[in-house]
Amino acid sequence: MFGVTILGNNSALPAYDRHPTAQVVTLYGHSFLIDCGEGTQLQMSRYKVRRSRIGHIFISHLHGDHYFGLMGLLTSMGLLGRKDGIHLYAPPELDEIIRVQLAASDTELPFPLHFHPLTREEVLVDHRKFSVECFATRHRIPCWGFLIREKKAPRRISREKIAGLNIPSWFYDRLKNGEDYTDQEGTLIPNESVTVANTPARSYAYCADTLFDEELPAKIKDASLLYHETTYLKDLPERAMARFHSTTVQAAEIARRSMAGRLLIGHFSSKYEELDPFLEETRALFARTELAVEGATYLVEPAPPIPLPEK
Amino acid sequence: MFGVTILGNNSALPAYDRHPTAQVVTLYGHSFLIDCGEGTQLQMSRYKVRRSRIGHIFISHLHGDHYFGLMGLLTSMGLLGRKDGIHLYAPPELDEIIRVQLAASDTELPFPLHFHPLTREEVLVDHRKFSVECFATRHRIPCWGFLIREKKAPRRISREKIAGLNIPSWFYDRLKNGEDYTDQEGTLIPNESVTVANTPARSYAYCADTLFDEELPAKIKDASLLYHETTYLKDLPERAMARFHSTTVQAAEIARRSMAGRLLIGHFSSKYEELDPFLEETRALFARTELAVEGATYLVEPAPPIPLPEK
Repeated sequence: MFGVTILGNNSALPAYDRHPTAQVVTLYGHSFLIDCGEGTQLQMSRYKVRRSRIGHIFISHLHGDHYFGLMGLLTSMGLLGRKDGIHLYAPPELDEIIRVQLAASDTELPFPLHFHPLTREEVLVDHRKFSVECFATRHRIPCWGFLIREKKAPRRISREKIAGLNIPSWFYDRLKNGEDYTDQEGTLIPNESVTVANTPARSYAYCADTLFDEELPAKIKDASLLYHETTYLKDLPERAMARFHSTTVQAAEIARRSMAGRLLIGHFSSKYEELDPFLEETRALFARTELAVEGATYLVEPAPPIPLPEK
Repeated sequence: MFGVTILGNNSALPAYDRHPTAQVVTLYGHSFLIDCGEGTQLQMSRYKVRRSRIGHIFISHLHGDHYFGLMGLLTSMGLLGRKDGIHLYAPPELDEIIRVQLAASDTELPFPLHFHPLTREEVLVDHRKFSVECFATRHRIPCWGFLIREKKAPRRISREKIAGLNIPSWFYDRLKNGEDYTDQEGTLIPNESVTVANTPARSYAYCADTLFDEELPAKIKDASLLYHETTYLKDLPERAMARFHSTTVQAAEIARRSMAGRLLIGHFSSKYEELDPFLEETRALFARTELAVEGATYLVEPAPPIPLPEK
């Protein structure tokens, strides 16, 4: 499963039982926490997200609604006797913020905390099956988006078609990359006769917080699922701009320009009690939009260009 | 009303929908927040405690379960446009912890934050009608208890009895302090003929976190309501001692020795799902005990004048 579970979908001021930003991305048995607003550890308990599974934490920026829950989460992990390291990717200043608080409480975490300062757009995690990159968004203070991309060979070997052909297994990776095979007798086996097109690699792009940024689509092109903040409804573009946030219409426009498969919207201002208008306004411009609802998990599925057959 | 509303009754690790320590004390129109664990602002919303009323915040010590909710509360107050100052009483290191976080988010609070470092036992607030003092408790790191005491004249003027006696109003304070009045003709009006004994001044003592401390009763003598931590049940005194916490039996003993009117117990370890055993064990030694339940308000009432016999 490649999915995103929402733990907090609200902007800075908690309201209407909505919580500040936090979400957990799961793929290939790994769990990544993206942002960690106040109360994240409580939301994890509420929605049965296991703290022990989290090995990597990504903090987009240092406004409190994106990280005030981090110290509580880390110290709870410590109290629970965690031994496995945590990789923390965040703006450089967070390192000192953590250190002064651990020092004041005379606490030493029982697990290694590997701090990776975010300073430029780069690949943060390079796994055999996926990668995590960060990219700059445009906010009042330095802020980073994250792009989690599956790696996939372009083609998949067909067990049926390859049966009995005596192609050595060391050549399989080359088959997946589209090469033909020539056997010892010089007989050519065309690649298409033993492979089929693979499902496209899936990707998740996280963009919060940011104002409407025309440079963004190039950084997150073709994401299967795009999370983009919509702090305000479409009638408040000036307020959105002034506060370095986005509106429904702007998020839809970024989804359209970046050719996103689906769009997930969140980071709603506490001035709104009802969220349906966010969905209506965004869907009017980008139909494949979902509201980020706390506790819900959104699958990162292949982007629509090659749709899977429906059951 | 002089009362204490519990916002969090659990120890460090949140569990069973119990939250880390926070409580609001209300008297004479003032609201004091004592400790501010993660999620305190959310608990305030849940239990309709108005953030705007809080003018003073007291932080006992810098273990996260007693202050990780503070930054979120302060920044929310700022976002709501608060102008009135906040007086914050806390261990000195909290000042830097707040400053590095405000700096990292490029935030300036729109209200004055008056930081008062706790360094010795002293009177922190000296109001006409009450005072707040801090006293040292014994914990792994420096930790402070708080004592909120009503000031009351020893006697109350009886409107009925004073009617028609022509005692000038400037003498009323002296009547309350027990003086007799002699009028211009030299007639003595004995104090007892125009005043009655006042109800005793009420007081609230907050003791968390602390291990069993024989010096504590002298500091909190005769509190109408004593809040004392009971992290563990009575079968774990060694663990309590090792972690600088107290058991049920120890809290009851402190209540007995300090001649508390009533005892309120909290800061329960997350290892316990059921809280009834805490109440049973403590009441067996100190009958007038209540469990601190989140959302509940406990009145600070005059202590029983003649202490009940204890077993």
